[in-house]
Amino acid sequence: ATGKCRSTLEGHSSHVRAVSFSPDGQLVASASSDKSVRLWEAATGTCRRTMEGHSSHALPATTVAFSPDGQLVASASSDKSVRLWEAKRCEVKRRR
Amino acid sequence: ATGKCRSTLEGHSSHVRAVSFSPDGQLVASASSDKSVRLWEAATGTCRRTMEGHSSHALPATTVAFSPDGQLVASASSDKSVRLWEAKRCEVKRRR
Amino acid sequence: ATGKCRSTLEGHSSHVRAVSFSPDGQLVASASSDKSVRLWEAATGTCRRTMEGHSSHALPATTVAFSPDGQLVASASSDKSVRLWEAKRCEVKRRR
Amino acid sequence: ATGKCRSTLEGHSSHVRAVSFSPDGQLVASASSDKSVRLWEAATGTCRRTMEGHSSHALPATTVAFSPDGQLVASASSDKSVRLWEAKRCEVKRRR
Repeated sequence: ATGKCRSTLEGHSSHVRAVSFSPDGQLVASASSDKSVRLWEAATGTCRRTMEGHSSHALPATTVAFSPDGQLVASASSDKSVRLWEAKRCEVKRRR
Repeated sequence: ATGKCRSTLEGHSSHVRAVSFSPDGQLVASASSDKSVRLWEAATGTCRRTMEGHSSHALPATTVAFSPDGQLVASASSDKSVRLWEAKRCEVKRRR
Repeated sequence: ATGKCRSTLEGHSSHVRAVSFSPDGQLVASASSDKSVRLWEAATGTCRRTMEGHSSHALPATTVAFSPDGQLVASASSDKSVRLWEAKRCEVKRRR
Repeated sequence: ATGKCRSTLEGHSSHVRAVSFSPDGQLVASASSDKSVRLWEAATGTCRRTMEGHSSHALPATTVAFSPDGQLVASASSDKSVRLWEAKRCEVKRRR
């Protein structure tokens, strides 16, 4: 059988290198070679946040991870840094 | 000691780049360079779904993830998109 | 401060590409470019199982994952297959 | 909307290849091409431990993982070994 695609999350301008669900399943974080991390609503496929700052995203893999409480997203980069982003704030706004 | 291979999941036509268990352990999702994501029954090794749509799967790694409730599978691709696939539907059919 | 290395798990004959803890924390699975998956005791660093069968392990990343109940280990390979290995059996023997 | 960067974890001298939260969310482990693994406080972004010993970190991906109880960090390397590091000890010191 062929599986159904529920939504296609488009917006990154280059390769998507990693993807992770938030612990509550409401958000999807993606890390791209376009140097940004994006947060998307899983239910609708809408992009809620674009987080920029890394100067490089040349490396592949699990370079994006939610904290267990879903409040932070960590991203690793070939710019030698790890960045912690506020994801909770994003979720709060979503419910308004 | 030598470990025992329970099953070999064959069907992808190119490299398998990522693998993930569903939260209930009944399904295994795999992402391949053949641009498809497949869902397999862990108990039998049978392929239940082939999910196509990505135009590229050139990047390695954790580009496949189940949502915490097991209903969705997210896959990331070098085609610049993330896709969300319905996995739950697959599980329902399995039980008939 | 400098962190302490508790144990070094040696035995693979090539690059180690992925590592994962079992859900109960007692085992560590590793996937290597030597085409094998190994299971190690976390407490002692002893290798309990070497699981061979993949004809290639050229790809990086999270190509090794425990099932939620800890009974299976899934490994993905550039030989186009996913393999499921019995890890539970290993744990049972450990307790004798 | 644009997401807010809470902290930038700087200290690695080369690419950061993997990142993982501890199960309690208080620590972030990072693995870098500089051959070290670092443990950071998620709340403050302070580096608590630098763990060295691997002779190579050329491979990408999820080469860093916390044990389920948060006491150990496993790192995989192209030096053919897996290393287990004591993370618990780190957390104890943090609370003094």
